[in-house]
Amino acid sequence: MSNRARDLIRIQGYILLVLAAALIIPCIISLYHREEKASEAFSFTLLFCIIAGAVIVRFISPSPARIRARDGFLVVSASWLVSSLVGALPFCISGAIPSFFDAFFESCSGFTTTGASILTDIESLPRSILFWRSFTHWLGGMGILVFVMALLPSLGISGQNVANAETPGPTKDKITAKFSDTARDLYLIYIGMTVAETVLLLFGGLSLYDALVHTFGTVGTGGFSCYNDSIGHFDSAYVEWIIILFMFLSGVNFNLYYLTGKIGISVLYRDEEFRFYTGIVLCVSMLIFVCRAFYGGFQAIGETLRDSVFQVVSVLTTTGYMTNDFDAWPTFGRIMIFVLFFIGGCSSSTGGGIKCVRVLVAFKLVRRGISIKLHPRRIAHVTLNRREVSNDVVIHITNFIFTYLMVMAIGFLLISLNGFDFMSSFSAAATCLGNIGPGFGTFGPTMNFSVMSNFSKLVCSFLMLFGRLELFTMLVLFSKHYWNSNKC
Amino acid sequence: MSNRARDLIRIQGYILLVLAAALIIPCIISLYHREEKASEAFSFTLLFCIIAGAVIVRFISPSPARIRARDGFLVVSASWLVSSLVGALPFCISGAIPSFFDAFFESCSGFTTTGASILTDIESLPRSILFWRSFTHWLGGMGILVFVMALLPSLGISGQNVANAETPGPTKDKITAKFSDTARDLYLIYIGMTVAETVLLLFGGLSLYDALVHTFGTVGTGGFSCYNDSIGHFDSAYVEWIIILFMFLSGVNFNLYYLTGKIGISVLYRDEEFRFYTGIVLCVSMLIFVCRAFYGGFQAIGETLRDSVFQVVSVLTTTGYMTNDFDAWPTFGRIMIFVLFFIGGCSSSTGGGIKCVRVLVAFKLVRRGISIKLHPRRIAHVTLNRREVSNDVVIHITNFIFTYLMVMAIGFLLISLNGFDFMSSFSAAATCLGNIGPGFGTFGPTMNFSVMSNFSKLVCSFLMLFGRLELFTMLVLFSKHYWNSNKC
Repeated sequence: MSNRARDLIRIQGYILLVLAAALIIPCIISLYHREEKASEAFSFTLLFCIIAGAVIVRFISPSPARIRARDGFLVVSASWLVSSLVGALPFCISGAIPSFFDAFFESCSGFTTTGASILTDIESLPRSILFWRSFTHWLGGMGILVFVMALLPSLGISGQNVANAETPGPTKDKITAKFSDTARDLYLIYIGMTVAETVLLLFGGLSLYDALVHTFGTVGTGGFSCYNDSIGHFDSAYVEWIIILFMFLSGVNFNLYYLTGKIGISVLYRDEEFRFYTGIVLCVSMLIFVCRAFYGGFQAIGETLRDSVFQVVSVLTTTGYMTNDFDAWPTFGRIMIFVLFFIGGCSSSTGGGIKCVRVLVAFKLVRRGISIKLHPRRIAHVTLNRREVSNDVVIHITNFIFTYLMVMAIGFLLISLNGFDFMSSFSAAATCLGNIGPGFGTFGPTMNFSVMSNFSKLVCSFLMLFGRLELFTMLVLFSKHYWNSNKC
Repeated sequence: MSNRARDLIRIQGYILLVLAAALIIPCIISLYHREEKASEAFSFTLLFCIIAGAVIVRFISPSPARIRARDGFLVVSASWLVSSLVGALPFCISGAIPSFFDAFFESCSGFTTTGASILTDIESLPRSILFWRSFTHWLGGMGILVFVMALLPSLGISGQNVANAETPGPTKDKITAKFSDTARDLYLIYIGMTVAETVLLLFGGLSLYDALVHTFGTVGTGGFSCYNDSIGHFDSAYVEWIIILFMFLSGVNFNLYYLTGKIGISVLYRDEEFRFYTGIVLCVSMLIFVCRAFYGGFQAIGETLRDSVFQVVSVLTTTGYMTNDFDAWPTFGRIMIFVLFFIGGCSSSTGGGIKCVRVLVAFKLVRRGISIKLHPRRIAHVTLNRREVSNDVVIHITNFIFTYLMVMAIGFLLISLNGFDFMSSFSAAATCLGNIGPGFGTFGPTMNFSVMSNFSKLVCSFLMLFGRLELFTMLVLFSKHYWNSNKC
């Protein structure tokens, strides 16, 4: 077996062991609540992961060569596919989601922090299954492999190469010299946020179970709830504002938190992406609020404001929690939400989508384009945080946006074969690729994805994976050059 | 008065004189058909143009300085605005379209070769008015100023600077050394095509009037017809295939015809944009045909094929003629048509939209993006027609596409305030900016724009002008730098 294949399989072994560790919690919950079928399903999956993982790690020795940049793509893609497949097993085996395509969709939606669901009645499912469903958000939020590396710094693989393929955003800042240290620091911040939100939700009167489930959905910017009405179930302004706050925080570049701790709060203000992100939240919330208040005759102003902010933050950070059906808003409001589908969170956050920094650079390009037309001989550079952005990075970013739109268009075409109306098909592709969750029309906030054909569900599942891994990680595997030159 | 203001006004004088010459034809038609109100309207507009134009040209002497690149933007924008305003006068004065906003919309739609209409019953209008409506397509197709320059090579303005602001496409090939020669050659090809199509349509049994009206709509890639059922009115396969052919030819880069005459037919095959354009027509027509045949149970295969090709060519070249309501096709077919909304004709053709060459470069960028991920150290250039495309040009092109999408999003938001459904508002913005004509939903092929508010009509009119002048020409006028540094 080649070195590369050995590395690839060995890392899947670690992934299986990590998943086994993660499965212990829902397993305990299922035993506690005496959910028999769920217990069986979790026990079986747990055993399978431990045995398969242990066998792989025991019998496949690490290769002497370090993993190359291009191998990172395959390793990461394979890890996410393995996780999604294993994550689907409890749904299938317990009979909670009997169809495999449905279970795979739900598991992909969980790990990629999308939050789109094929469930028609969420509350009828066993509590342990719902816990696992939300827990996958938490595992996928920061990246499964980053997690493995945070746990096992001596894995013998170059973390940076893997992180390049898994971490969102065009620039990968190494905030510490060793990548495994960075991974550990990021996970500490992530865990800190998780604990903080859980405690604050407990203050809001939620049970520990509810608090955890919704914290996982928030900090992972996922969007799975254990209630049919999502966050609307609690009908509590306090809970909603807490979730707004943590959705917002989870959409911020996590490296900024690290730097804020080191340098001070001025880091936040100086970061252009953060300012852009905050500006979008404020402006769009205001516009939607005014539009809705205007159409609604200025009744229940407070609630309208909260709902508007909630939906804007929820969609921008690609979480997908709901307190209000935005598909029933006036057209202007719906369009504003639709525009947010194409933005997403900040780079290196748990949010998906195109990412704020890329959209910001695109805006700057447009402004520069006008300036170039006026002064054809002046050399105008695009700057970000007072540093010049090189032409190469600009082209990388525009590249990403084109590829994003193109993958979306292909997904849209494939889903359209299912015969749904235009807007539903379009929004399904956009919401899956952007890892958001709800779409418009047939897949609106109050609807679900159960009506899709198995083919469309598979297309959506892969769109979620493409989106979560920032397109190229999986896309290069479809290039014949990848496999050809791998042989040489 | 400054030199620049003098030049600006003097050129408007020439524009008015050209318009006066153009108005003679519909004026004669109105006299021949004894359409009294139309005769009055045309006579008045004609007199106004002659007097105003003559006064300006007589009393405002040409400035000694040559026109600068940046002044070109204002000159061109002003010329198109003046033409659209003057073009609206006959509609208003004759009472055919009483509302000024409606008349301005119709006139903009004519000159920009969009073909979107606010008329609910086209056939009820005087024949001379309908002739003028279609004639504006012909005038706007090649560019009004290019026309002026072809007539008056000694105008004292640098044609290239004006052409940069008016001619579509990212690269402005000078096929002859002097720009006025290029303009003349382009107009000769244009006139040749007009004559050829008219003769061929006469063979199809059309009256001279019908043949001319539909030739103007075809070679200008406009789309105005004098019948409510557009091309469907004739119900003739011959007429449809002739119009398909000439729509296709009008969407080709006109410089290629010139080069084909000089070098030979191999020029066409060697041109990547032409191959891309032809490829889209063939592939999309086939896909739509198969999809429609499949859903329709394989009945009337010949007609389905012709309809599919007709609509694909009509939308791709941004003409907008109709033989079949594509908004009633299966979702997959509608989506394919929608995708064409974002492509458009070739550069330096009479078609609008983003233009094939820009979309082609975007595709190549995506492919290069994947290649760069695989070989980070290899320098991969984007090539077009075997020549390397410089990074600057790549950034210009991506810039254009972003600006296009952004202007469309803003138009979409403004139109959405009118309260139409999502898809209707979106398609209205897309179809106006792309100079296509029909949209989806409320503005579908069998509908019209009359239901819009005056504000939305104005937004659409400006979107058409923005689209026709390739965004930046008008966009720079909104930049405060333009006016500030003009003063210095």
